[in-house]
Amino acid sequence: MTLANLSPEETAVAAANLAFYRALEARELSAMDLVWSRSEAASCVHPGWHRLDGWQEIRRSWENIFGSSRPWTVSCEDLRIIVRGEIAWVSCVEVIRPFGSTRADAAARMQATNVFMREEGGEWRMLHHHASASPEDESEEESIN
Amino acid sequence: MTLANLSPEETAVAAANLAFYRALEARELSAMDLVWSRSEAASCVHPGWHRLDGWQEIRRSWENIFGSSRPWTVSCEDLRIIVRGEIAWVSCVEVIRPFGSTRADAAARMQATNVFMREEGGEWRMLHHHASASPEDESEEESIN
Repeated sequence: MTLANLSPEETAVAAANLAFYRALEARELSAMDLVWSRSEAASCVHPGWHRLDGWQEIRRSWENIFGSSRPWTVSCEDLRIIVRGEIAWVSCVEVIRPFGSTRADAAARMQATNVFMREEGGEWRMLHHHASASPEDESEEESIN
Repeated sequence: MTLANLSPEETAVAAANLAFYRALEARELSAMDLVWSRSEAASCVHPGWHRLDGWQEIRRSWENIFGSSRPWTVSCEDLRIIVRGEIAWVSCVEVIRPFGSTRADAAARMQATNVFMREEGGEWRMLHHHASASPEDESEEESIN
């Protein structure tokens, strides 16, 4: 998927997804406030964690992550966007590096599934985030394929 | 969420989700054939793996998993079902035990996000599966919440 080929709807979802990763990189809770849905259907699975349900619980987790983590840069690779009516989901690889690091092996790679809903006013808000550790390269994966 | 409180749509999605876990437990590729969408949007993230895109690639991975794995029992806990129009997603914890094992510590727990689409004929088919290792209990989790 290249960004040049996106439909207007896919572009809007890509922008919502980018806003999430900008909020993550900036470690700004106020930016996360704008990204997430207030729906009781909202849920979040951080890497290696159980699911958190509802915005209050999710917000508290970001507050604690941002309070305890060091500056990092975040980029997003292998993006795939599917839009069906008022729901969209994005699959991508999150690449998280300690700020200022140039070492390739310092980057953590996470496989992410992000679900968005188009809410009143037409804005796409995040309803579900599931991130999990991804292999650095395919040789690290178990042989299942 | 209790199964007694499900709407007819949620019940249909719960049944599609159950069919997936029965196919996984039975290690039957022909059952997986019935569960998954043939849409090019189909994608799958096995625990610790990169994303597989499209039914051919996904089917091959199940074939290899079923060919190399030993019998197991699979159950599904902490189920959450959200339906919005033609799209639904399920969040749950997969509990996978070696067949015949009674040891509690032999169970592997996976956090799963499953996306389903209602296709022509009204059948819910799996479009996306993302599973990742989940902690046995909360004391194993990093302190982020």
